[in-house]
Amino acid sequence: MTMNVPADPMAHELFDEIARWPIFDVHSHIDPHRPAARTLDEVLGYHYYTELAHSAGMPTDKVAAELAPRVRARNLAEHLEKIDNTVQYSWLLEIARTFHDFPHDRITPQNVGDLYDRAERAARDGAAWDREVWTKTHLEAVFLTNAFDDPLEGWDTHRYVPCLRTDDLVLKLHEPTTVDRLRRTSGLDVQDFASLRRAIGVLFERFVRRGARACAISLPPDFAPRRGAPKRAVTPIRRALHQMDLRPDEHAEIRRTVFWTLAEFCAEFRMPFDLMIGPIRNVYPAGVAGGRDLVDHRVSLHEYAELFNHFAGVTFPVSTLSPAAGAELVAYAWIFPNVLPLGHWWYSGIPAFIAAELKARLQAVPKGKVVGYYSDAYKLEFVLPKFNMFRRVLSETLAEAVRDHGWTTDRALDLARLVLLENPRRIFGLGGAES
Amino acid sequence: MTMNVPADPMAHELFDEIARWPIFDVHSHIDPHRPAARTLDEVLGYHYYTELAHSAGMPTDKVAAELAPRVRARNLAEHLEKIDNTVQYSWLLEIARTFHDFPHDRITPQNVGDLYDRAERAARDGAAWDREVWTKTHLEAVFLTNAFDDPLEGWDTHRYVPCLRTDDLVLKLHEPTTVDRLRRTSGLDVQDFASLRRAIGVLFERFVRRGARACAISLPPDFAPRRGAPKRAVTPIRRALHQMDLRPDEHAEIRRTVFWTLAEFCAEFRMPFDLMIGPIRNVYPAGVAGGRDLVDHRVSLHEYAELFNHFAGVTFPVSTLSPAAGAELVAYAWIFPNVLPLGHWWYSGIPAFIAAELKARLQAVPKGKVVGYYSDAYKLEFVLPKFNMFRRVLSETLAEAVRDHGWTTDRALDLARLVLLENPRRIFGLGGAES
Amino acid sequence: MTMNVPADPMAHELFDEIARWPIFDVHSHIDPHRPAARTLDEVLGYHYYTELAHSAGMPTDKVAAELAPRVRARNLAEHLEKIDNTVQYSWLLEIARTFHDFPHDRITPQNVGDLYDRAERAARDGAAWDREVWTKTHLEAVFLTNAFDDPLEGWDTHRYVPCLRTDDLVLKLHEPTTVDRLRRTSGLDVQDFASLRRAIGVLFERFVRRGARACAISLPPDFAPRRGAPKRAVTPIRRALHQMDLRPDEHAEIRRTVFWTLAEFCAEFRMPFDLMIGPIRNVYPAGVAGGRDLVDHRVSLHEYAELFNHFAGVTFPVSTLSPAAGAELVAYAWIFPNVLPLGHWWYSGIPAFIAAELKARLQAVPKGKVVGYYSDAYKLEFVLPKFNMFRRVLSETLAEAVRDHGWTTDRALDLARLVLLENPRRIFGLGGAES
Repeated sequence: MTMNVPADPMAHELFDEIARWPIFDVHSHIDPHRPAARTLDEVLGYHYYTELAHSAGMPTDKVAAELAPRVRARNLAEHLEKIDNTVQYSWLLEIARTFHDFPHDRITPQNVGDLYDRAERAARDGAAWDREVWTKTHLEAVFLTNAFDDPLEGWDTHRYVPCLRTDDLVLKLHEPTTVDRLRRTSGLDVQDFASLRRAIGVLFERFVRRGARACAISLPPDFAPRRGAPKRAVTPIRRALHQMDLRPDEHAEIRRTVFWTLAEFCAEFRMPFDLMIGPIRNVYPAGVAGGRDLVDHRVSLHEYAELFNHFAGVTFPVSTLSPAAGAELVAYAWIFPNVLPLGHWWYSGIPAFIAAELKARLQAVPKGKVVGYYSDAYKLEFVLPKFNMFRRVLSETLAEAVRDHGWTTDRALDLARLVLLENPRRIFGLGGAES
Repeated sequence: MTMNVPADPMAHELFDEIARWPIFDVHSHIDPHRPAARTLDEVLGYHYYTELAHSAGMPTDKVAAELAPRVRARNLAEHLEKIDNTVQYSWLLEIARTFHDFPHDRITPQNVGDLYDRAERAARDGAAWDREVWTKTHLEAVFLTNAFDDPLEGWDTHRYVPCLRTDDLVLKLHEPTTVDRLRRTSGLDVQDFASLRRAIGVLFERFVRRGARACAISLPPDFAPRRGAPKRAVTPIRRALHQMDLRPDEHAEIRRTVFWTLAEFCAEFRMPFDLMIGPIRNVYPAGVAGGRDLVDHRVSLHEYAELFNHFAGVTFPVSTLSPAAGAELVAYAWIFPNVLPLGHWWYSGIPAFIAAELKARLQAVPKGKVVGYYSDAYKLEFVLPKFNMFRRVLSETLAEAVRDHGWTTDRALDLARLVLLENPRRIFGLGGAES
Repeated sequence: MTMNVPADPMAHELFDEIARWPIFDVHSHIDPHRPAARTLDEVLGYHYYTELAHSAGMPTDKVAAELAPRVRARNLAEHLEKIDNTVQYSWLLEIARTFHDFPHDRITPQNVGDLYDRAERAARDGAAWDREVWTKTHLEAVFLTNAFDDPLEGWDTHRYVPCLRTDDLVLKLHEPTTVDRLRRTSGLDVQDFASLRRAIGVLFERFVRRGARACAISLPPDFAPRRGAPKRAVTPIRRALHQMDLRPDEHAEIRRTVFWTLAEFCAEFRMPFDLMIGPIRNVYPAGVAGGRDLVDHRVSLHEYAELFNHFAGVTFPVSTLSPAAGAELVAYAWIFPNVLPLGHWWYSGIPAFIAAELKARLQAVPKGKVVGYYSDAYKLEFVLPKFNMFRRVLSETLAEAVRDHGWTTDRALDLARLVLLENPRRIFGLGGAES
């Protein structure tokens, strides 16, 4: 059985070629010290499986942290049959077959032990396994999600590219751990907005020096960027830094001001600022780890217009969590030079939604602005099957253009190369879109 | 001419098999005392035809209640040509041809008399006709929509399964008829929240005893369930029960509290609680009966998160009226174990929207949670053509999976059987999802 | 290379027939005194090209008004390669090949001079060129967008049909030029609501006398029509007419009241009132002319229910800018006799969105109410390629119906003729939908 190969002959031909190319992955949660999975448990522990199995009836304690990894994997395998219709399950099977020569076409409680053994043998020498997965994936670079106090040391940052993740600074400044971490990593005695600003500058300098290529943040649907009013924000920020009580409007003022400050540094350091718009955290608190966040489709990019206008020199690659905003993203990327559609994210990252979004982007956004896909993976093994899912949809979309517009296959492949490789390389090159 | 048969050969093959199966229909408005139509007027009186004909120019008085049934049917037939492009019209033609051996491929003012006669002859013995339609439809069970004071007597509740419809209690508690009906049916002197609660308990007991398998409600887009504050609600509820004036915030408090109370009884009686989210009633008051309600797409399932969390033991099959919320429903059903996507409803119930919603559900929701379809029919004759519409879309969707993922046809049929038969049977079995 | 010809044989057959028909175009921005382009610069100056090129990196000064036309065209051509994936680019190429026998399949900085020369030669005799483009396009009529003070003289209004555009009256009444223009064109001393009303009546009389077939307006997403309260509006309107300061609520009252007044005149004069819902003006002020407006998908037709109810005798052809409202438009047109889906507009006017919207409309809206398409063009040359884009999508949609529902090709073509020709002719005939 071949997997993820389009049935349409023209799409098949395009896919065969595209599948040979390297992968340039501009957003992931890979741990550069331990990029590939050491056990099958680390693969099955991806939140997509635990949350879907839980949604299908598995109690959360079946995958509790205190269980032995093999037990956890076995417990989860008992529920895999219930989600074997999903695209997420298809990634799992592709991993088993591609990386572990798994001969079966389903993972069952009966054969999961065998698969566990295969994965364990493969990863016995961790570093060698990391290299093997990297090579089989034909990976060129994968971007990380680094906490602002990550020392960014101990790995090849040309392969595992740092990316400054800033959610904590914007959304959790009032929490004591945030301030402590900020003081420690910046070496500055952060006490007020002025010293906070300097500390953020220190972070940017360190990240850029260590090869970071993007700043990133995920923002809830009720966040609306507005030009900060530093005078108005001074007192709330000082109160937040000292964990004093804050009114909701003060929280909002802090978020807006810190976010705006980050955008200013992105401008100064010529860093793209990835905006991942839409998730609401902890909507289902009783869920498994990573499986508690959801979405509200009533968010509009119009709230971001002031930001896009003010920071004309900052490139904003944008992902929206809800497909309902997908058409807006096409319109904003079609008008604003600095707004780019970035991949297909999370709840929007299934073929049905990808196909609809991709077709519109390729019909109406300048081709050099479309960043095709990123894996969002936690373990290297997922990069290949997730990209193959996207490559298949892309091949089908391009096959239609070949048929309907009389394009040559070369022209279709040029466009594919642009959105998969050349755009990400150029847009996330040091110095931003202009470089 | 064959109808509703997919052109794609693989889809055709799947459809041929699926069309042989029984139908398990979890939501309708069938009258169990008179399930099949007695005249063609009762078929043409389905609001889809009167509202579309009116929208196409037919004055409402052409289908007024005081007209003779044959005149009404004739009047409507004069406008059918104007809607012969619609999927709703295709159901009508399928009824005429399947149940009445109608030889023409259009219903016209010229041949509607013949069709009227055929339908009248067929239904001369009403009970026999009910059985014939039931058998030809291969119906296994059809759920009803029962007012809370329905005596639930006089029919086989294994075939015509009761379902407690609760809109009046939540949305019209302040109307005198609601309280009167509640007092009469419960035998309790409902005067305040405490006695209201007891009365609702009496309803649930009676419905469950009589084989009810679900509680259901349709909710307007501006309704947001919140945990009730009984102390705060006590006074407004008392005032409502005595038809005293209420402020808008008091109305809102009553709705929230009664709704929450119903969810508590669903938990106690292990009843699935069907949420049909989105309609606004009487938006077009000058319309025909049943054709006055519309939609506002600005409603989000995020408003329901507190409900889904609090009642983790209650199964919530959810229909959304606006396709704009369809992607949210996929996300919420993918995360919450107790949230299930339920069919494709009303303004979302046309193939273009069904295909998009269904593909996403089958790609990302655990297969055991997808409730494929329900007819929403008022007369038995509509169950078959409406299900056939869905079965065709399902066959086309599965044919794609067969081609693109190398599935066997057996695997595709297993998934079809699950969403069409096994899931509805299990989920709406007595005792809810756990049974 | 053939362009815009569907690959599917049945769709191809339908397209070949449909492409032979005349075009009846119910909305454009054509200048009747100078309908076809006199230079290639007027073609390349269409905002789709300047805004997409700018979005792809071209500075706005490269297409500044003060540049020589040939320089501007040359500058733009340097950026065309960056947008050659878009559907908008495909219109350009179709113009070059159809109207100028351009032999290449790309427009480059190298060959744009040749194309410029061809276009210049073609338009040497402007009037002859207008006729040639008209004839090649097989144009039957094209509707204009006329300012309320347009003298409407000097052209054949049966071919170039006047349409009263009313944005300025509703949205800019407080600006001095608006009042001045209104006084001048009406010959009335407009000083208050009563005289404003009389002046608007004068406009309607003149437009109708000169053959106008529609009143049109584009409305921002935050506009919600409500029945005017003339007593409350009297003072704000007087203040607006004298450029006195206005509070936001007074602005809102003025907009609502003037809009409602326009609807009253549409009723009186039996004019269809085109509602183009969704654009927000000047969201990106640094953009090129015509490329600064955007969208917020959080707008619902429910806000228009009061209007649709009150003016039951007025036909409202409705375009929505955001595809997110597309399903609502289907529902509202399915229920309200006087609401019609009108074409596929601007950010929704790309094949991906057209296909989805069109399929739903043809499945659920009475066929006589669907107004297929309008060009929105500024120059005659664009009517043909834009209509061909729509005709291709329509052919593909109908080919599916032929295959899936056993329709004959004649039946499919009848439906195509209705939505492309007969509906627009009838709906925009003098006297409105009833005539």
